[in-house]
Amino acid sequence: MTTGPIRAVVLLSGGLDSATVLAAARAAGRECYALTVNYGQRHHAELAAAAQLARRYAVAEHRVASVDLGQFGGSALTDAALAVPEQASAGIPITYVPARNTVMLALALAWAEVLDAAEIHIGANAVDYSGYPDCRPPFIAAFNALAAVATRAGLEGRAPVVLAPLIALSKAKIVRMGSELGLDYALTVSCYQADADGAACGRCDACRLRAQGFRQAGLPDPTRYRQA
Amino acid sequence: MTTGPIRAVVLLSGGLDSATVLAAARAAGRECYALTVNYGQRHHAELAAAAQLARRYAVAEHRVASVDLGQFGGSALTDAALAVPEQASAGIPITYVPARNTVMLALALAWAEVLDAAEIHIGANAVDYSGYPDCRPPFIAAFNALAAVATRAGLEGRAPVVLAPLIALSKAKIVRMGSELGLDYALTVSCYQADADGAACGRCDACRLRAQGFRQAGLPDPTRYRQA
Repeated sequence: MTTGPIRAVVLLSGGLDSATVLAAARAAGRECYALTVNYGQRHHAELAAAAQLARRYAVAEHRVASVDLGQFGGSALTDAALAVPEQASAGIPITYVPARNTVMLALALAWAEVLDAAEIHIGANAVDYSGYPDCRPPFIAAFNALAAVATRAGLEGRAPVVLAPLIALSKAKIVRMGSELGLDYALTVSCYQADADGAACGRCDACRLRAQGFRQAGLPDPTRYRQA
Repeated sequence: MTTGPIRAVVLLSGGLDSATVLAAARAAGRECYALTVNYGQRHHAELAAAAQLARRYAVAEHRVASVDLGQFGGSALTDAALAVPEQASAGIPITYVPARNTVMLALALAWAEVLDAAEIHIGANAVDYSGYPDCRPPFIAAFNALAAVATRAGLEGRAPVVLAPLIALSKAKIVRMGSELGLDYALTVSCYQADADGAACGRCDACRLRAQGFRQAGLPDPTRYRQA
């Protein structure tokens, strides 16, 4: 038996949601192992944000795993030939990256198995991105069922549990939660097309949802926007 | 509706099992998209074998996706500090790579979604490696349940189906099947510690199971072994 604090692998993109998840996990006393997946996003500002958040929250370890999802195409986040939309649209947005959360949770599962971690935390959210199939509760439930049979730990009845604590929360509730935990959202980058030092465009889906979250929460928005 | 041949993403390691799966898929008229996952294996001879098999079977495309599972450790296949065993052992072998098949199927799912492929083929086998949790039928079933909710295609009722046609076959049955399909097993590399040009050690688990398969099938073993 392992004694001491509960170990958790925390998927940390550097964005608002995953930073909130990390802050909550630390507040709950978890020993956190932050995993950032570099999957061919257009910019690296959020990777730098993830590294800074990992230090701020004194994680036990921070790893960056690279996997080139961009080679498969199909998303504006990984394919420079597709424009990031600046208007809300119907259906699944073109910023959806095929199987992204499946790939990220698979990598988290690999590390969790080696660490003998009891939990995997992910900032998936079904409210803002209702069109993303892999941000919904049935997806998290199915991944938990998979983890129970996919791993050595699972065969021994102690598969890591995937937790998605933000899945049903509005952006306003998320930023209120993080703010109460003392999280400085100026450290996070949400913009789909942030510039090299993390300044946001203010126009993409992610920027619009983030700004609306602070507005609805009645909190000041600390985001650094690019000069027009 | 897509017309024409059924598209399949085939996970192709360059080993005996996945080569047999590819030969069978082509014989069944599938339009094959071969995906080789370079996950930090110790040697690259099997990657070269995969490329050669992809050409031989005239796949529509062959992609190599790299992901560093070795950084998480925990397996003799990705950690040079752990010796590859040359004796059979009880329990899950140290050659087990945590969450490997989950990661490989997640990547196949990403490509399948972009291609609108109806099938994903994997050479997982529960007989020879009974200790590997992610080579058993319940794992394949759980991944299929995940694929149904994880993807855009799944939401539309046409998630790609994961097929593991070798899962219940002995190695002897597998090599008999491939031989009947005309597969030249000299093109495949199974050895866990093959040298740079693919010559096998003849002593590791994979070599022993492979040699036994040809013996039990009553077929000549075309494997190139290293000079002692």
